[in-house]
Amino acid sequence: MNRVDHIGIAVSSIEHVLPFYEQTLGLKLLKMEEVASQGVKVAFIDGGNIKLELLEPLHKESPVAKFIEKRGEGIHHVAFGVQDIKDRLAELKEKGVKMINESPKQGAGGAMVAFMHPKSSHGVLYELCDKSNTKEDLA
Amino acid sequence: MNRVDHIGIAVSSIEHVLPFYEQTLGLKLLKMEEVASQGVKVAFIDGGNIKLELLEPLHKESPVAKFIEKRGEGIHHVAFGVQDIKDRLAELKEKGVKMINESPKQGAGGAMVAFMHPKSSHGVLYELCDKSNTKEDLA
Repeated sequence: MNRVDHIGIAVSSIEHVLPFYEQTLGLKLLKMEEVASQGVKVAFIDGGNIKLELLEPLHKESPVAKFIEKRGEGIHHVAFGVQDIKDRLAELKEKGVKMINESPKQGAGGAMVAFMHPKSSHGVLYELCDKSNTKEDLA
Repeated sequence: MNRVDHIGIAVSSIEHVLPFYEQTLGLKLLKMEEVASQGVKVAFIDGGNIKLELLEPLHKESPVAKFIEKRGEGIHHVAFGVQDIKDRLAELKEKGVKMINESPKQGAGGAMVAFMHPKSSHGVLYELCDKSNTKEDLA
């Protein structure tokens, strides 16, 4: 838990919001992909020291679709970069943290990820993101 | 707009949530202060490459108090570090971005700050944060 990897931002349409990030803010699109396990299409934007991850729901059952339905577009989560995610999850469990994912799931870019339950983190959806096994680093 | 300076997180009580950040996540408290102009008490947490800024409302009229009343505790804003904030504001205005603060206001640590209107940024409350005139860099 020693650095923030990215900030996840829920959007209805990546295509619709990209001009704001690219032209208005002058930031660079790094990569786009679909992450079927999370029901989202993602676009990584270079935020300098961290990435902004735009999340567009692929279908109505996607957690991101439900987020947008309830709260509108906006900041969805903050992801900490970690190593040895299974050990980190065991430590958090020992400290009484409730996880949405008790074991790591496949995330964007082949990373292994797990989300904390916001009830354990005072309303913030925190993700642990382990890219040790990926060939690339998007940062 | 070349790097993210911090992520603002609305909390009801800094004292109440600090053990989560310090003991559960193992992060370090850098500094605490009151920012009267924004009606908040803030605590900066070292997030490695960026800072997490815990925001506790000082009174009911604070924008952060209204945020918590409406949405509960959670992620409040993302701040980009900038230089020459007045020039950046002029550029954004030229690009048609609506600002909450048309001119910079004093923020935490003596920084000059201005918030974009979320209607212009697809639901995300973005802050511009210029620390050129401050003696310290909290990062």
